Amino acid sequence: MSTLRKDPVSSGWVIIAEERAARPKDFIVEAPPHTRSASCPFCGGRESSTPPEIMAFRKDGSPRDLIGWSVRTIPNKFAALHIEGDLDRRGEGIYDLMNGIGAHEVIVETPEHDGHMGYYTLEKMQEVIWMYILRYQDLFKDKRFRYIQIFRNYGSVAGASLEHPHSQLIALPITPRWVKEELYCALNYYRLKERCLFCDIVNQEIRDRQRVVFENDSFVSLEPFASKFPFETWLFPKEHNHDFSLTTQQEVADLAHALQRTLFAIANCLNDPPLNFIIHSAPRVAEYDLQFRDITVEMDYHWHIEIFPRLTRVAGFEWGTGFYINPMPPEKAAEELCRVFSGYSSQIRRLGPKFSEPAGGGST
Amino acid sequence: MSTLRKDPVSSGWVIIAEERAARPKDFIVEAPPHTRSASCPFCGGRESSTPPEIMAFRKDGSPRDLIGWSVRTIPNKFAALHIEGDLDRRGEGIYDLMNGIGAHEVIVETPEHDGHMGYYTLEKMQEVIWMYILRYQDLFKDKRFRYIQIFRNYGSVAGASLEHPHSQLIALPITPRWVKEELYCALNYYRLKERCLFCDIVNQEIRDRQRVVFENDSFVSLEPFASKFPFETWLFPKEHNHDFSLTTQQEVADLAHALQRTLFAIANCLNDPPLNFIIHSAPRVAEYDLQFRDITVEMDYHWHIEIFPRLTRVAGFEWGTGFYINPMPPEKAAEELCRVFSGYSSQIRRLGPKFSEPAGGGST
Repeated sequence: MSTLRKDPVSSGWVIIAEERAARPKDFIVEAPPHTRSASCPFCGGRESSTPPEIMAFRKDGSPRDLIGWSVRTIPNKFAALHIEGDLDRRGEGIYDLMNGIGAHEVIVETPEHDGHMGYYTLEKMQEVIWMYILRYQDLFKDKRFRYIQIFRNYGSVAGASLEHPHSQLIALPITPRWVKEELYCALNYYRLKERCLFCDIVNQEIRDRQRVVFENDSFVSLEPFASKFPFETWLFPKEHNHDFSLTTQQEVADLAHALQRTLFAIANCLNDPPLNFIIHSAPRVAEYDLQFRDITVEMDYHWHIEIFPRLTRVAGFEWGTGFYINPMPPEKAAEELCRVFSGYSSQIRRLGPKFSEPAGGGST
Repeated sequence: MSTLRKDPVSSGWVIIAEERAARPKDFIVEAPPHTRSASCPFCGGRESSTPPEIMAFRKDGSPRDLIGWSVRTIPNKFAALHIEGDLDRRGEGIYDLMNGIGAHEVIVETPEHDGHMGYYTLEKMQEVIWMYILRYQDLFKDKRFRYIQIFRNYGSVAGASLEHPHSQLIALPITPRWVKEELYCALNYYRLKERCLFCDIVNQEIRDRQRVVFENDSFVSLEPFASKFPFETWLFPKEHNHDFSLTTQQEVADLAHALQRTLFAIANCLNDPPLNFIIHSAPRVAEYDLQFRDITVEMDYHWHIEIFPRLTRVAGFEWGTGFYINPMPPEKAAEELCRVFSGYSSQIRRLGPKFSEPAGGGST
């Protein structure tokens, strides 16, 4: 059983996953090469090489754990957290720990090995988002979980150990430290202004336009004012909503469009870089925290997606301080990304013939 | 002029360094190969290829910016912050920013290209630490600076663009967010217990011994209870002291010994991995914060060094949450590192003949 340990110096929790690698020689600095499609466990037809599926979108009548699916969710084979058991919070001298209870799932987005999210059809993109929503809703019913994070690692530099298009979901029994920081800032802002911090950001950015990358009826993507990394990009619903899983059917269509267009721009502007994206949605506020809250998370939090192209290395200074040096002003980054849409047909060739442009993905 | 921008969502500050790289093609995913010694600007005899020196330990009578030095501090040629000018704090709608005022120095530790800190003589190690202390004291006199960080990137994966042994120093006009987090935890702990959090950690670890790596009269290095990364190692003075630059002469000798032995163990246990280390010392508390403090940083803060071997990749989950999955229990990591000292003579050959063991660096 892995344990969750609390760092008394930062208040952050860490998973110590004893079952995973354990000897010095197991740690390698460079990531292994990508799995070729010939041996990929996520490809259609190799369903038996993964743990049994949790949920899948399937052609009517196709049986579980065989072909016939379009999106398929499975447990992570090397899960850091396990769904069964009690938390058993306890102390060890001055330290705090608990059992590694949680969920760690893999959402295989397509049976095809060579897909690229920036080139998905809008139908495929919507399917993936619906799977995110359904898994989120299902796990959030479990009261032991405070926070659910859906994220995607693309490219080995970004931490993806398999090339096949997939996302991941982790459900946690605690609220992680940076999420707490966001909540704290949002709460403080609301107390001062009686308005949502994120709504104010969205409104100012849409008015200014100098950092906007893509916009449709319900969503906007933009380079944040204090971007930590070159081409860091955030995607917000324009309507206030604290919970990702409450996204409506019409909004899912707009979200699919906005996310696909934004990833397309990043891929074409930056020669298909490795990247991570993370969905930030409101946690379940612990009962003992509720008494300190005059304002609910429904009021002050606003879900969003943060996208990080992995272009620069994080060095000692950043590790030591959480203070980043970014050589790319976000206004210039937005300009470069928008240029992809205007120079559309010439840019598209840069990623080669492996990916083709979806029919529904027209330029803005 | 670069600017400092405040992220309203995390309260973290970011340096937007406009003068640095600015086009998408300037961002490369892999670091450039190490500079060979034939063209290294930090080697003895090439003093003219760096900006003029700020401070150097020199043989009596040797002139500035020529050979004859043993440790030499120069401004960073590609500094993200500049020492001249006013902060000019201001707003931009809901956002906050200020000018990029600060210092960014490089401490070249030796004129020799091939040194390794884990193999420095204790005399060399002490010299380097004295340079850290003198530069720290000098810059801390400047009241514009709230926080001074001394750090070392070793290996290109850890962000070092030059192979020649060097450390860096950055002086900042703000207290970075993770330092604030540490201060907050330390203050809360002191309020509850009327004791220093770090003193309690040191005492518990020395009593337990299962996570201790190295110990001498004044210092102890250990694997923290909630290690974020495999072989993360912290080094503490045993006596309470909030400020690194107040280290006494006797303590400097012990610090040199403890740091060199700890880095030696990491290098030998993990096949000379890339790593970062960062000195965490108390910031200057802003006047507007003092009124909220019933306890001073002299009382609740305890300086220390954090060492991070760069063995695993940081993926989307970690970026999104500040919540780490560590496959190496710190107790096992400590055991592996201690084994280096017991299996001393057989281990030393692993790094090859490039580095030789210093006379004063005997095993514990």
